Amino acid sequence: MHAVLPTLLALTVILVASKLGGDVAQRVRQPMVLGELVAGVLLGNLAHAGFAGLAFLGSDPVVEALAQLGAVILLFEVGLESTVAQMRQVGRTAARVAVLGVVVPMALGWGVGAWLLPDAGTPAHLFLGAALSATSVGITARVLRDLGEAQAPEARIVLGAAVLDDVLGLVVLAAVSGIVAAADRGVAVEAGPIAVIVLKAVAFLGGALWIGRRVMPRVYRAAARLRGDGILLGVSVAFAFLLSWAAGVAGLAPIVGAFAAGLVLEGAMFEPFAARGEPQQLEELVRPIGQVLAPVFFVVMGFHVDLMVLADPAVLGLAAALTLAAIVGKQACMVAVTPGLRRLAVGIGMVPRGEVGLIFAQMGLALHVGSRPVFDRATFSAVVVMVIATTLITPPALAWALRRPGTA
Amino acid sequence: MHAVLPTLLALTVILVASKLGGDVAQRVRQPMVLGELVAGVLLGNLAHAGFAGLAFLGSDPVVEALAQLGAVILLFEVGLESTVAQMRQVGRTAARVAVLGVVVPMALGWGVGAWLLPDAGTPAHLFLGAALSATSVGITARVLRDLGEAQAPEARIVLGAAVLDDVLGLVVLAAVSGIVAAADRGVAVEAGPIAVIVLKAVAFLGGALWIGRRVMPRVYRAAARLRGDGILLGVSVAFAFLLSWAAGVAGLAPIVGAFAAGLVLEGAMFEPFAARGEPQQLEELVRPIGQVLAPVFFVVMGFHVDLMVLADPAVLGLAAALTLAAIVGKQACMVAVTPGLRRLAVGIGMVPRGEVGLIFAQMGLALHVGSRPVFDRATFSAVVVMVIATTLITPPALAWALRRPGTA
Repeated sequence: MHAVLPTLLALTVILVASKLGGDVAQRVRQPMVLGELVAGVLLGNLAHAGFAGLAFLGSDPVVEALAQLGAVILLFEVGLESTVAQMRQVGRTAARVAVLGVVVPMALGWGVGAWLLPDAGTPAHLFLGAALSATSVGITARVLRDLGEAQAPEARIVLGAAVLDDVLGLVVLAAVSGIVAAADRGVAVEAGPIAVIVLKAVAFLGGALWIGRRVMPRVYRAAARLRGDGILLGVSVAFAFLLSWAAGVAGLAPIVGAFAAGLVLEGAMFEPFAARGEPQQLEELVRPIGQVLAPVFFVVMGFHVDLMVLADPAVLGLAAALTLAAIVGKQACMVAVTPGLRRLAVGIGMVPRGEVGLIFAQMGLALHVGSRPVFDRATFSAVVVMVIATTLITPPALAWALRRPGTA
Repeated sequence: MHAVLPTLLALTVILVASKLGGDVAQRVRQPMVLGELVAGVLLGNLAHAGFAGLAFLGSDPVVEALAQLGAVILLFEVGLESTVAQMRQVGRTAARVAVLGVVVPMALGWGVGAWLLPDAGTPAHLFLGAALSATSVGITARVLRDLGEAQAPEARIVLGAAVLDDVLGLVVLAAVSGIVAAADRGVAVEAGPIAVIVLKAVAFLGGALWIGRRVMPRVYRAAARLRGDGILLGVSVAFAFLLSWAAGVAGLAPIVGAFAAGLVLEGAMFEPFAARGEPQQLEELVRPIGQVLAPVFFVVMGFHVDLMVLADPAVLGLAAALTLAAIVGKQACMVAVTPGLRRLAVGIGMVPRGEVGLIFAQMGLALHVGSRPVFDRATFSAVVVMVIATTLITPPALAWALRRPGTA
């Protein structure tokens, strides 16, 4: 009769748990988001441990979608707080950080694979390396906001590098998949499909910039003539959703589109709304939506962390080595950072792995060379644990690194 | 890879269409919500007419759920604008309006059935009457807000009566289902299950009032001590979702719970947040969420209106008679309204039928007496058209009625 009932209950539990978790985190001087993640881990493992009444929190597709929308709104907010000009200032540094942050962890991941799983074969080592490549910017963005550091140059470097990272991660994904498929068929690697993916990503970023700078000022001038209320918010959120969708279609993470949308919108575009007496502070209008939806993303992310998988020593050992490689590898990014900045904050800000790491894990399980999958179950679990560990470690480590002074 | 992409595109289309539709409606001096409904009707019939690319708008379960959440947030907002004391002032009038608004349309619906479908049998006539009974308050609430009349005594009478209507509608549903089932088995009607439904609904309303008045002031005092941001909004929205869920579990529409939640929350409860320097105006914080989600509800509602069904003259004739009965029947409510008020606005405000009417239509199709369903396809379609027609007619008619002076 009312299909929405499980969603309503799940959102109630998630909102209350996130605020309680956030409170505890703040009391121990940690960012709220760590509390939301841990609240999710607790709920998820209670559900595993027999509190079956909680299982619906992790299985409701609407809650899952709301979590994704929460990440989209969060990155849109972060983008709104940045401008294209600010990003351009850090552009070269961010590009160097992105490249180092992909190449070094890949090499370390390959090395961990070759050392701990010598019999797994080159495709597995390649996929382990690739799984360590791409930063997931959601956690870092939220920590930077929680600590009021979203405007700092280190923040802009990390956010810019993470966007480029996502593009590089795609190229790596296309390349290693192509190599494994070629190995399976015993033929040479083709460059065509890889080039298509790169072109789509570049076209998306170029298109987003063009729409943002040339088209959106006209859209807002026209929209300001529309009658009715909620026009500024409605048009802006629609733009964020549109670019998120376009990013997904181009093969990028939707949150990259949301960040791009926020980045290209600037306060001056909203001036036509001044005459209407409507609030022009878009950030103020988006914030309540983010305050309700973003915690859904972090609680749900924590919910899927099954602590039981750590009971297997082989998984635990591989996971520990991969996590170490993931953390140490991204510290190579520090080399590219201008002196005087908090380099360690940049290195740690790049640490969290997220959806892209999980996609590599999933593809490693699905792709075969001959009759053998590239990843066995234990290797897959170890990659998942690495994603979780880098996610949980970042909030406290980044908060600590941001309190340290810049280095020469 | 990204299951959320169709949702992102659907929300983009819905937000843009709703703002354009709202603009046109305002230019012809109609409430925005009529424009949103019509925008949905246009999108839906374009999808039917071969623009298959639009069909996903009506089939994405996440969009459907967001529409329901939009209705929940809307009724929460309407409830926040009312107080229990205000509702108590109109309590007796609202109760009389509710009873008249259930009894008279039921009798007229029965009459239309007996007149136009003499061979359909008593159960069908009974169900046609029942389908005309319950007001769907979403449309009326939105029109009253669009026109800045949500505080008017007529508005409180309609909202109070619609809540009672929902309870009465449930009793009618239980009663007529029991009668039809008894007719099918050839046995006497049982009072037990009907009593259970009534008890659950009464327990819900009593519980909501008790939690709201006794428990929530303590919850807010405790919540104000939590660290982190977005606490007032998070706790309040969680309360709205919780009562919506509880209403659904009690067999009522979730939006009745959302309205009750808003009704029992009062500004004085939020005073502990003053010391935090957080905004205390809960309405201001909830509004942006409603501005994004409520249009989803109305566009999706319009989307499901298939104008093709009107091509069958038999359906059209029955639908016209039922719609007339639905409109005229609710005008009996005017008798119960205190002199001096805009009686016609109360009568018209009670006109829209929604989910409860559709549930009766669905049950008429599903229940059988012997091998024959209570409703055939044509009767079912006619009831659906009645629901649509009462929904589309209310915004302009109510706007017109509210411009007329009160009557003695």
